[in-house]
Amino acid sequence: MLIAVLLFDRFTALDAVGPYDVLSHLPGAEVVFVAERPGPVTNEVGSLRLVADAALADVSTADVVVVPGGPGQNAHMVDGPVQRWLRAVDPHTTWTTSVCSGSLLLAAAGLLTGRSATSHWLVRDQLADHGALPVGDRVVFDGKYVTAAGVSAGLDMAFALAGRIAGDAVAQAIQLAHEYDPRPPYRSGNPDTAPRAIADAVLARRSAIVS
Amino acid sequence: MLIAVLLFDRFTALDAVGPYDVLSHLPGAEVVFVAERPGPVTNEVGSLRLVADAALADVSTADVVVVPGGPGQNAHMVDGPVQRWLRAVDPHTTWTTSVCSGSLLLAAAGLLTGRSATSHWLVRDQLADHGALPVGDRVVFDGKYVTAAGVSAGLDMAFALAGRIAGDAVAQAIQLAHEYDPRPPYRSGNPDTAPRAIADAVLARRSAIVS
Repeated sequence: MLIAVLLFDRFTALDAVGPYDVLSHLPGAEVVFVAERPGPVTNEVGSLRLVADAALADVSTADVVVVPGGPGQNAHMVDGPVQRWLRAVDPHTTWTTSVCSGSLLLAAAGLLTGRSATSHWLVRDQLADHGALPVGDRVVFDGKYVTAAGVSAGLDMAFALAGRIAGDAVAQAIQLAHEYDPRPPYRSGNPDTAPRAIADAVLARRSAIVS
Repeated sequence: MLIAVLLFDRFTALDAVGPYDVLSHLPGAEVVFVAERPGPVTNEVGSLRLVADAALADVSTADVVVVPGGPGQNAHMVDGPVQRWLRAVDPHTTWTTSVCSGSLLLAAAGLLTGRSATSHWLVRDQLADHGALPVGDRVVFDGKYVTAAGVSAGLDMAFALAGRIAGDAVAQAIQLAHEYDPRPPYRSGNPDTAPRAIADAVLARRSAIVS
């Protein structure tokens, strides 16, 4: 089972590494990090570099594709190498997935037309501009397309996907190995529970977060 | 504020990237990934490489140190460059932190003697072998030493630490930007809630997970 994780300049690290760290533990999983060019790819903060093993042209098929989000996603919303790669590899996948604003890339590539999908809460409505049907859930399955809400939602998506791929027991074992029993110290994880002033402040600097 | 994230061969990626992705968004934060040698460092699965910016010798001071865990931690439990670096940098830190079995490294370096600390549930008891006092909490603060339980607990630690460093409002804003409103699809995140057979299976392959 080949899992291809897309990287691009100014991606959000946790969008990619959260699902990676779960799915890479599935039996038989092999992972390739793929980008326009092989080599280090820098995240949106500028201080983390993850190495891409392969160029887009080197990965023509994959069983699972994971598309992260981040401010750098915006540069690939027009037709170009990333969108062409997504369209070329998608017919071969068993699961095509995204985290955060990565779903906008899938939608812009035409892969979510008429499908339910989610994204980071700051940009979820933009899915409709690209033919998808925005849903407010944290993880959305529509056929083989699986989309997660912002950043950390990639973990919940990955455990749900692990269960679909390898069964509940395998997913539960990975969860226990990762001690994924989250206890956020604040209740500020979504705009409905966050203090109003916090939500307004995050909204005001949206462009630094997702696009 | 300089945040130094330690990397070593066969670290667990999420142990490092979870806290990184939270703490790197603190106002004024600069992050350096540090390892015995600069360059790509491979995780315990073997398919992810994160780039270390600096050698241990290049980072003599930091405001925050983050020590991940993973099977590779075991190679540094004896006196050597990593332990010497931890002892040298610690007097300069405001916060010295760890995720997962990274607390065993701090303890082996003599930094947790007589202090309460946690670790991955599979190895938490081993803290006592190195003079620390094992506590079953997900995140443990003892003075400037902050330790987290297994892998994903680094996220909870990082948000709690972000609050201590920059105040509740900043931590809450980062939480909302990361949409950290976790909804695990299974209740298998700790050995008390996981099915017994799952816990036994994870216990049986402990050495592949943490040491």
